[in-house]
Amino acid sequence: VNIGIDIGGTAIKGGLVDEKGAIIYTKEIPTQSKEGYGVVLSNIYSLIESLMEIAKTYERKPGFIGLGIPGLADKKSDYVIFCTNLGWNNVPLGIDLKKKFGLPVIIENDATIAGFAESICGLTKNYENSVFLTLGTGIGAGLVINNKIFSGSHGVGSEVGHMIIGENFYNCSCGKNGCFETFASATALIKYVENQINGGRQTILSGVPNIGAKEIFEAAKQGDELAKETISRFIKYLSIGIVNIINIMDPEIIAIGGGMSKGLADILSDIHDEVARLAHYKTLPYGKIVISELGNEAGIIGAAMLS
Amino acid sequence: VNIGIDIGGTAIKGGLVDEKGAIIYTKEIPTQSKEGYGVVLSNIYSLIESLMEIAKTYERKPGFIGLGIPGLADKKSDYVIFCTNLGWNNVPLGIDLKKKFGLPVIIENDATIAGFAESICGLTKNYENSVFLTLGTGIGAGLVINNKIFSGSHGVGSEVGHMIIGENFYNCSCGKNGCFETFASATALIKYVENQINGGRQTILSGVPNIGAKEIFEAAKQGDELAKETISRFIKYLSIGIVNIINIMDPEIIAIGGGMSKGLADILSDIHDEVARLAHYKTLPYGKIVISELGNEAGIIGAAMLS
Repeated sequence: VNIGIDIGGTAIKGGLVDEKGAIIYTKEIPTQSKEGYGVVLSNIYSLIESLMEIAKTYERKPGFIGLGIPGLADKKSDYVIFCTNLGWNNVPLGIDLKKKFGLPVIIENDATIAGFAESICGLTKNYENSVFLTLGTGIGAGLVINNKIFSGSHGVGSEVGHMIIGENFYNCSCGKNGCFETFASATALIKYVENQINGGRQTILSGVPNIGAKEIFEAAKQGDELAKETISRFIKYLSIGIVNIINIMDPEIIAIGGGMSKGLADILSDIHDEVARLAHYKTLPYGKIVISELGNEAGIIGAAMLS
Repeated sequence: VNIGIDIGGTAIKGGLVDEKGAIIYTKEIPTQSKEGYGVVLSNIYSLIESLMEIAKTYERKPGFIGLGIPGLADKKSDYVIFCTNLGWNNVPLGIDLKKKFGLPVIIENDATIAGFAESICGLTKNYENSVFLTLGTGIGAGLVINNKIFSGSHGVGSEVGHMIIGENFYNCSCGKNGCFETFASATALIKYVENQINGGRQTILSGVPNIGAKEIFEAAKQGDELAKETISRFIKYLSIGIVNIINIMDPEIIAIGGGMSKGLADILSDIHDEVARLAHYKTLPYGKIVISELGNEAGIIGAAMLS
């Protein structure tokens, strides 16, 4: 049995996972990221301690702690280099945990872990090469090549959200213009609608207090012209990003997950059509495109299976 | 000793290569691609037969025939699926050669082979993960992951030239708009200059009968405003393409080869600066960017080492 921890901006989820990837027990606590690294760390300590207690009742001792973070860790130094949402910059998370529990620790990016979990118990299982795209506030990715997590040679790969695919009316939070996530994330949809409303466009979304991707999809269903145009634009650029990935990596399968993914079922066939239209080799096969069916526990499972 | 054959639009180069990748003997013949597959095939037969004869004088028998083509081959069926320059569509090149010579045959894309050769005896040697970019009429690439050629799961990967990176004033030969090669190949430079001349721009290039990348680089050195702008635009988009590759694959090293590469020495530091400006993680290392030093024989060596 191993411990998997999924650290998010609002909650930390932890669980005991067996060697085959089955969840035995899970627990969730608030992150309290505003209190700083020290408080979050002691929250993680408590969570792991309670998981250790539960493991005892099963007469098992966890062999490993895996953690997913919304940021970047250095596997050699066991430091978390960046974790923008949590306000972390070069914090010794891996070192602290190893010292505290005397167990091996691996820290990975959460999108990478989600892709890995998908390849263990989701739709990309049994595929050697897969790409997992998380569409939410931004766009993240988890690449699996030859059945292994691939994050590149310096750990800075799989940042597909920051692949430049065009010119956009607003800059990405990273400072560049034209990043994939400024065209095909939930933020991208919201920014486009706001921009059009500010430009004087009529839409039923004008009266909506907190416009989110969900509201835009619903307005499109109700026939709102701006919402429909926004979804068409989203399909166009999501397909460009997918085709770029196919043209470089040519995976067997691309799974789409993340907060926005459940809303994509209705437009998946449009995405298929647009990808087919843009595909370089029209008569040759390329990877399947599917919507992830894994739930909230994927991050825990993936983290626990990192060892 | 093995046989490596490099099939180009105008010439077919062949050679005997030892197990370590050293060239023993080379020979070159015209392709005669306009005469059709049958004639080109019998030209390849003659070339291989003469290489076999030479091998005899060394008292060695070739163990394998590797071929590079400017197109796409299916390794399972031994058919060449596309080879636009040669006018080939589904030709049984591998089957014909196996029948004729009774030796194992592997056919690969020439950019893939160039990247492989670079990883055997060029600047990407001793790197596990590398990307080789060929800049010429178009843009091709050869990816090496974990010391092995990586062409994806269906063989349609490494087509980085057709990654969409923006909107352009002309469509790519593939039919899409915004492909990397419409911004950063020799063709891209020529098209941009022609477009500007047609729009009434003054330039010393107006009087030049056959404008090529070389003439544009020279005009820029002489201070021609349009040529300088064209080179700046080239640096911008080449860097975007490189950063997109870094953001996805994060290779240890990127080597630039192909017909245009020799002209890049003067602007390599500008490319470095622009890539650094666009890099997602400003404080973390990413792959080196170098200009290939391999000569014309790289295609023969890479092909012969495919076994």
